[in-house]
Amino acid sequence: MLKVLVLGSAAGGGSPQWNCNSDVSIAVRDKEVGTSPRTQSSIAVTANGSDWFLFNASPDLGSQILNNKQMHPDKNFSRHSPISGVVLTNGDVDHVAGLLTLRERQDLAVYAHPRVHSVLKENSIFNVLNPDYVDRRELPMNKSFELLKKNGEGSDLVIEAFEVPGKIALWLEDESKGENFGTQEGDTIGLKISSKKDNKFFFYIPACAKMTDELSERIKECEMILFDGTLWKNDEMASKNVGEKTGQRMGHMNNSGEDGSMEALKDLKINKKIYIHINTTNPILLPSSDERKIVEENGWQVSYDGMEINL
Amino acid sequence: MLKVLVLGSAAGGGSPQWNCNSDVSIAVRDKEVGTSPRTQSSIAVTANGSDWFLFNASPDLGSQILNNKQMHPDKNFSRHSPISGVVLTNGDVDHVAGLLTLRERQDLAVYAHPRVHSVLKENSIFNVLNPDYVDRRELPMNKSFELLKKNGEGSDLVIEAFEVPGKIALWLEDESKGENFGTQEGDTIGLKISSKKDNKFFFYIPACAKMTDELSERIKECEMILFDGTLWKNDEMASKNVGEKTGQRMGHMNNSGEDGSMEALKDLKINKKIYIHINTTNPILLPSSDERKIVEENGWQVSYDGMEINL
Repeated sequence: MLKVLVLGSAAGGGSPQWNCNSDVSIAVRDKEVGTSPRTQSSIAVTANGSDWFLFNASPDLGSQILNNKQMHPDKNFSRHSPISGVVLTNGDVDHVAGLLTLRERQDLAVYAHPRVHSVLKENSIFNVLNPDYVDRRELPMNKSFELLKKNGEGSDLVIEAFEVPGKIALWLEDESKGENFGTQEGDTIGLKISSKKDNKFFFYIPACAKMTDELSERIKECEMILFDGTLWKNDEMASKNVGEKTGQRMGHMNNSGEDGSMEALKDLKINKKIYIHINTTNPILLPSSDERKIVEENGWQVSYDGMEINL
Repeated sequence: MLKVLVLGSAAGGGSPQWNCNSDVSIAVRDKEVGTSPRTQSSIAVTANGSDWFLFNASPDLGSQILNNKQMHPDKNFSRHSPISGVVLTNGDVDHVAGLLTLRERQDLAVYAHPRVHSVLKENSIFNVLNPDYVDRRELPMNKSFELLKKNGEGSDLVIEAFEVPGKIALWLEDESKGENFGTQEGDTIGLKISSKKDNKFFFYIPACAKMTDELSERIKECEMILFDGTLWKNDEMASKNVGEKTGQRMGHMNNSGEDGSMEALKDLKINKKIYIHINTTNPILLPSSDERKIVEENGWQVSYDGMEINL
């Protein structure tokens, strides 16, 4: 068995974004019926009902823990958390800043690619994670392994990380390194997340710049995927006057269009297709929009904060 | 005129803290009548009703902006914020991590002591604050000056920063430097915040390890002070089994006792005395506690998130 809890379903900045007046940001701030705030993307998963791992640690982690009872401490201890550790899929601020919330003497295992660990190490602010309590572990690529708690006990969660087309984190971009800004393999990864006991599994790919033959071969015929839902169309930010960058410039596929994720996953026979990491400019966040209707007609769900899925 | 909005009233980690089962943390999680969640300490102030400066940027800034209409953008612009800038009183994670939320092409002025700026510079994650939009400015000590917006316009807010007894931020402690862990002057500051037009003013001192003659002379007979309310008593964390450190070890005065803030401010003829930066172990957060009654009898208010004060 696998329990998946969506802690945050939005892209960087959440929805609404603090200084943004996109249609979605306004509707959420005005509490329009059917809308709700979405925090920055992160999921929690357990395979045994008690030990949870976070996949990415968003800047909103404090409120995400408060708003989801599953993340509350067991009252039998003065300090406790059901969170055993964190797996990072890249070094984006909206995926790592939540580590700063996980201070206060709690055993944790933090798995990340060596490139992500090296930037965490270079940034001394992450020293708030006391090494007496927090173990920083390498996340190997293309290798299936069980996530272990800080004390070495198994979690019954087995993961496999693999590289997907993407982009280096914005704050690590190096313009001197040409049009990919210094992006290397491993800067963006996807995950297969499995239950050790019954082999249930799903894919978690919150950022993906392009569908490749290798990737579609890997994910086809799976039970469930949580996939990059950032933008409806490539020039969405500019068309709404809230930015210049295209989806491709940021390392994300569109939902729509010939090169979009709806088209790319259409024939892959995936039972549950769920968009996550959705930008506050994306009209699929409005329940009454045409775009929401289209993604639903194409068999996609739009994730929301607090969504629970059992496999 | 000065408008003060308490964005966050709790100490580091907020209340409840994510992995803590203090009486207060449990009561708030259980939604006991009269309790409410408190985010990490920060205030917003305006002297002209439209340009706000934040004093400290807490990790909870995203939800603080969402939950306070005064911080919402003007709908007449695609991007806008009433927040003109941030003044940092030290380098604590719970005072600086919120800067990571203030990305997305918004003009801001960030004032801090050179020691704080240097640690922000050493931590490349703060490069998400694009220098095209965000001006990092030195906060001079013992000098009264007007806060200017990024474009150089005045804000009608005049501040004066001064050193108070305190401690270096936890994540910057250097054990090789003896029992003060490398603390230097300027690591903890207090602020006098004034309105340029009518000379209304108040003091904001969210951390203070000790009352000195110089400090009591400075603050006496003022209209209002927001003061360090971290702990009720020095060994509170140990007595509740959630930590080892005393208040003094963390750089904070108690509320109670001979060496506490109630006693120290008792005869200073301050009209409004308000505790802020209150730890989730502090019983004054429970409205029915004896300790709450005692602080109120001594003329103190306990701040809460969303509290508004007009001077």
